[in-house]
Amino acid sequence: MIWIDGQPEARLPATDRGLAYGDGVFRTLRVAAGEIPWWQDHYAKLHDDAARLALSCPTEEVLRRQLEAALAADPGASHAKLILTRGDGARGYAPPQGSPPRLIIMTGTGESPLLAKPLIARWCDLRLAIQPRLAGIKHLNRLENVLARAEWSDDAIAEGLLMDTGDRVIGGTMSNLLLWRRGELLAPDVSGAGVAGVACARVLHGAARAGLRVGVRAVAAAEVMDAEALFLCNSLAGVRQIDHLDERSWSPHEMGAALLGCLHESP
Amino acid sequence: MIWIDGQPEARLPATDRGLAYGDGVFRTLRVAAGEIPWWQDHYAKLHDDAARLALSCPTEEVLRRQLEAALAADPGASHAKLILTRGDGARGYAPPQGSPPRLIIMTGTGESPLLAKPLIARWCDLRLAIQPRLAGIKHLNRLENVLARAEWSDDAIAEGLLMDTGDRVIGGTMSNLLLWRRGELLAPDVSGAGVAGVACARVLHGAARAGLRVGVRAVAAAEVMDAEALFLCNSLAGVRQIDHLDERSWSPHEMGAALLGCLHESP
Repeated sequence: MIWIDGQPEARLPATDRGLAYGDGVFRTLRVAAGEIPWWQDHYAKLHDDAARLALSCPTEEVLRRQLEAALAADPGASHAKLILTRGDGARGYAPPQGSPPRLIIMTGTGESPLLAKPLIARWCDLRLAIQPRLAGIKHLNRLENVLARAEWSDDAIAEGLLMDTGDRVIGGTMSNLLLWRRGELLAPDVSGAGVAGVACARVLHGAARAGLRVGVRAVAAAEVMDAEALFLCNSLAGVRQIDHLDERSWSPHEMGAALLGCLHESP
Repeated sequence: MIWIDGQPEARLPATDRGLAYGDGVFRTLRVAAGEIPWWQDHYAKLHDDAARLALSCPTEEVLRRQLEAALAADPGASHAKLILTRGDGARGYAPPQGSPPRLIIMTGTGESPLLAKPLIARWCDLRLAIQPRLAGIKHLNRLENVLARAEWSDDAIAEGLLMDTGDRVIGGTMSNLLLWRRGELLAPDVSGAGVAGVACARVLHGAARAGLRVGVRAVAAAEVMDAEALFLCNSLAGVRQIDHLDERSWSPHEMGAALLGCLHESP
């Protein structure tokens, strides 16, 4: 089901700047028994992403109320997607003054491809552009992800890994990558490209609290290939170990359960 | 007025991939006495842009028929914006198979800011990311342009000039830049960032035919500042000389009329 600005409504004006320019941000939320795990993290991230685009963000209370209404009307939903755009605009890039943002909530069902067993990933050819002004934000300019995902049509492959134009590893098209390597939990730096995911941040935070050595830095493809274990994480799938990446395979690693614990126990 | 897939309709499904990912391309067309100048160039560019995203493009006949209907219903229109998206999609980046694209036509009035006299431009701080897979395409991922345009609020300033992250000059937020310098008409290379505009291509082509020395290459900011004349061009404004760029000013240059001639006479 689809709700727009609190009303059940499946269509929006063609003048929305989300359509014209991708001028907005979004969140994909897992729904469990009508509740949204890690809601505080999601709201904080939405608010931060909006602030970086000078986009006004609804209050947590407004957002929560609209989400609750949407989920009450679709009790079987397993996820909700939330899109916040800059609302309607006249022609031209200048952000309109005082025009209200538009909030779209879509609820639905379906399982994340990352829950597939075995979990198969591949390297993508596309290189992500380096744009510090947009990096980390889950914004609506996602053509790079679309082009990367279009590189394969074999449904057995769940995810593609991406590097940036400087050959630094960034992560998956729809997930963050974590490496367990030489006794360290390593996350690629996403300050130049990619998305700073809520699930990934929770895992890193939880791992540091649990006393693991945690690093966030530029990662090379060779480090990925010789890692002891690789994990993908996002809000829908949690943390999942990669079983196969192109020609390389890994056995199940004990860190899988540990990182899942970090994800769920993080405050 | 707004038309969607040939019907007068101002709203579209929230599931459109143009909204979700900016998965589409667009054109801004000048309308003169109900006709669209350089229609063949515009259609060819739309078709090429769509092909680069593996997006299926309506035939010229279909597009022309829909545009004619839209313009007949809005006889005072001075421009038309045409958006072509990949249509509706389920959640996920994978382009849907066989799903029809969606065509949105918006007609309207209003003058281009580039027609202001004097024409004042500024340098933007934002640096465009380098992404050869998307460079040149007039796609719907335009957050960089939005952020750049948000750098100023003084309406007297019509346009902002952008460099890429490698400090190469690319062009304006909504126009292409041309330099007249040392007897050469110079256009910044847009193979790494920026949009390859139809008006600019016409001017360059016409200038070469007229026997002018024409170059397309990487351009440094210093070359812009010591050019004998600078011009901005797009489909709505044609070719216009920049009068002021930050602290630097230029007197009207005879190349202005020559380039306008190239634009209009190009076959």
